[in-house]
Amino acid sequence: MKELFDRWAALCASSPILRFVDINLRGVGQVMFQDNPLTGLLFLAAVAWGSFAAGAPAVFVAGALAVVTATLAALWLRVDRPTLNAGLYGYNGVLVGLALATFITSGPLLWVYVVLGAAVSVVATLGTANALRPLGVAALTFPFVLVTWILLLATYAFSGRAGSGLPSAAVITPVELLPEASFGGIDFVKGVLLSISQVFLKGSGVAALLLLAGLAVSSVWAAAFALGGAILAVATAHLFGAESNLIVGGLLGFSPVLTAVALGATFHKPSLRVAAYAALATVFTVVAQAALNVGLRPFAIPALTAPFILVSWMFLLPRQSFDEG
Amino acid sequence: MKELFDRWAALCASSPILRFVDINLRGVGQVMFQDNPLTGLLFLAAVAWGSFAAGAPAVFVAGALAVVTATLAALWLRVDRPTLNAGLYGYNGVLVGLALATFITSGPLLWVYVVLGAAVSVVATLGTANALRPLGVAALTFPFVLVTWILLLATYAFSGRAGSGLPSAAVITPVELLPEASFGGIDFVKGVLLSISQVFLKGSGVAALLLLAGLAVSSVWAAAFALGGAILAVATAHLFGAESNLIVGGLLGFSPVLTAVALGATFHKPSLRVAAYAALATVFTVVAQAALNVGLRPFAIPALTAPFILVSWMFLLPRQSFDEG
Amino acid sequence: MKELFDRWAALCASSPILRFVDINLRGVGQVMFQDNPLTGLLFLAAVAWGSFAAGAPAVFVAGALAVVTATLAALWLRVDRPTLNAGLYGYNGVLVGLALATFITSGPLLWVYVVLGAAVSVVATLGTANALRPLGVAALTFPFVLVTWILLLATYAFSGRAGSGLPSAAVITPVELLPEASFGGIDFVKGVLLSISQVFLKGSGVAALLLLAGLAVSSVWAAAFALGGAILAVATAHLFGAESNLIVGGLLGFSPVLTAVALGATFHKPSLRVAAYAALATVFTVVAQAALNVGLRPFAIPALTAPFILVSWMFLLPRQSFDEG
Repeated sequence: MKELFDRWAALCASSPILRFVDINLRGVGQVMFQDNPLTGLLFLAAVAWGSFAAGAPAVFVAGALAVVTATLAALWLRVDRPTLNAGLYGYNGVLVGLALATFITSGPLLWVYVVLGAAVSVVATLGTANALRPLGVAALTFPFVLVTWILLLATYAFSGRAGSGLPSAAVITPVELLPEASFGGIDFVKGVLLSISQVFLKGSGVAALLLLAGLAVSSVWAAAFALGGAILAVATAHLFGAESNLIVGGLLGFSPVLTAVALGATFHKPSLRVAAYAALATVFTVVAQAALNVGLRPFAIPALTAPFILVSWMFLLPRQSFDEG
Repeated sequence: MKELFDRWAALCASSPILRFVDINLRGVGQVMFQDNPLTGLLFLAAVAWGSFAAGAPAVFVAGALAVVTATLAALWLRVDRPTLNAGLYGYNGVLVGLALATFITSGPLLWVYVVLGAAVSVVATLGTANALRPLGVAALTFPFVLVTWILLLATYAFSGRAGSGLPSAAVITPVELLPEASFGGIDFVKGVLLSISQVFLKGSGVAALLLLAGLAVSSVWAAAFALGGAILAVATAHLFGAESNLIVGGLLGFSPVLTAVALGATFHKPSLRVAAYAALATVFTVVAQAALNVGLRPFAIPALTAPFILVSWMFLLPRQSFDEG
Repeated sequence: MKELFDRWAALCASSPILRFVDINLRGVGQVMFQDNPLTGLLFLAAVAWGSFAAGAPAVFVAGALAVVTATLAALWLRVDRPTLNAGLYGYNGVLVGLALATFITSGPLLWVYVVLGAAVSVVATLGTANALRPLGVAALTFPFVLVTWILLLATYAFSGRAGSGLPSAAVITPVELLPEASFGGIDFVKGVLLSISQVFLKGSGVAALLLLAGLAVSSVWAAAFALGGAILAVATAHLFGAESNLIVGGLLGFSPVLTAVALGATFHKPSLRVAAYAALATVFTVVAQAALNVGLRPFAIPALTAPFILVSWMFLLPRQSFDEG
């Protein structure tokens, strides 16, 4: 494997086009913190599978278009090359593209939105990184969430055009108390897998396995924390009394999965103490996901990865407790 | 009194158990900025009286459990000892416990919530302190408000379990214009006292007197600003046309009381100029309390001490105007 | 013109009263970033015209009272003189006064609000400037928006008094899908002009021309970017499918106008590259304006200049991309 990567690096060094491809693949890989083109390729395969299997190829196209747009915008903005080459100006873009194509019905406005949103996501990434530098924490997917929320909210005001497919705010209903549904072993497994695939806004077991494979080729710890985070999230959500179909669909688990990987394997060196800390953060991300699902109802927009960002910032800011970790 | 404190300090130095008790008492005292175990004891007595008198002993138990949990979590997180010993990792925890037991009906989920919330409040305190260090302002009760809001909002999504007792979002109603109710001298006195006791989420005149006594044994200025802040808040709320039963219940006054103590006696040296500044901030906290009461209606969660935090940060950030204070 | 300004500066240096007038005029000019008393005078004339023509002279009086209150509050707070003399403690105040008198019906509470809000706007300006100093971005109109939102929201809770004229939250209705209205050349011109005059909360073509004149006497670039920003904003809003009567009323354009002037002519040296960046920001401000209009519906408060602040901060934080600009 090492040899393969070295060969690819040599090829990229000699070809600007391959370098460009490499940057975009790493951008996709950075959605789960991996600076690795093979990871990016496997993630892209997961997105492709999830999109085509669901009969929504536009989602895949929007994601690919967005990451390329983001990379071009970063070049125009003269960002620093090492950060660009690590894919750190691309992961917010690809998520913006996937989310817009998921929540807005296809039409001309969608594609204008994808390009605009991907370009602005780079500006937001630069700005967020600058704002957070004194605090020593990363931007995470905050630029993605900020830009996508603004674009999605605006569609309600741009209803004169065709192509805005968000549920109308008119259909917002009060929270209803639900009877506890049955939740068996197969539901548990499905919830765990979809919690992983929903990181890329996909509800697909095959996509989840491709994502785990993509993580594993770059970092076995990352794959382990993703799986462990998903299991912990599904168990917590069930014990706390969340709605079963949300759990099974992975919709309460994708933010906790990201929290687990970020706190367990990315920003700290893995250890028992770190694992306990990451577990506490993962449990609280489930609560935050439930909270934001409720809190965003009046606006009729999805929480996206905001619970992950909020809780990870909370748990990353106390650096002193784990500096020796 | 001085001798008594010295004796207690000597006892704590020789006994880890008494030291632990001391830390927790100071944690309770820090809810109103007092690093003093006797203050903490009197505050605890106020909470006990308010809880038992209202037939809600679980609230007192939750507060006590939460402050102990927070102290243990702080030890596990290896926080710096001087800050821990001053009770600064405990006051957010005790408030989380009191608030959760006040707004959620008793049940297994409540106690999981109290322990989880108290532990996370320490993480949030560490993080907030780090984030605000460059700005030179204190974390205040922001960790309490953040953690409690997330936990309370999430209960709406965890309705499958028993024990979530927040008013259902289904009962949110539009703001109604109310006729001006009568508001006499006895209402005024009651409003002033309950504005003080509501700092600990209690509507009790006896609790208010115990709290004032607790403040006075540590700082007469703090007690004076608390009382003055309460009087100013009730007068302002009435003159601005707030609903009388909210004023009499102390529900528009507890945040202004905290603002008055913080700006008048804690973060500035008392003086006429400082008192005028604190008075302006106190009046604006009444406005902010009214604003947040309205602004949080779509989410059906209480404002807690958010108005105090918001206005105190606004008024503490311009340090240059009072550095010579 | 140079000679005129020199003569005025000499007069101000010798007379504290003229200096006071000068500070207040510059405060009005700083609403659109101009440290120039003649600009302030022309802006004031625009506000006067807009207010009297609309039969709402109280709006003009409130704006004038607010800027004077803000200057007096700044003096009491012992702010630094160069910043005060440049009008930078006045522009938020004048906007607070104009907004309160626009959205609240006249009555005693209004005037208390104007004085309170203008005084607090200075505290908020000092605090915001301190908080943002490490980030290297300006406070913009954030203090105005923060203070005005708090005061407007609170009016719903102060309904016991007469004089609160905000639309009751009871009348909030879900977003409706609208048929695309006709939008001709005359609508376009009207939309462009009112986008400029709405910076001062006025819908008046004459006021717009006075504002452009005020900009031009201080900076031709500022006037050009204001006009260009307005044209781009109206075109974008129409192409994206926004409601025509909002566009024609200038209600989607005033924030983009401010973004265009800020990014094109105030915080960067004008160039082609800067103009392209400012254009991207201006387009995204239209989206953000639409988004905030929708997002603030549950609170029944206006977006004010929040879209401008949000997008300008996003686009100003990546300083590295334009340091050589």
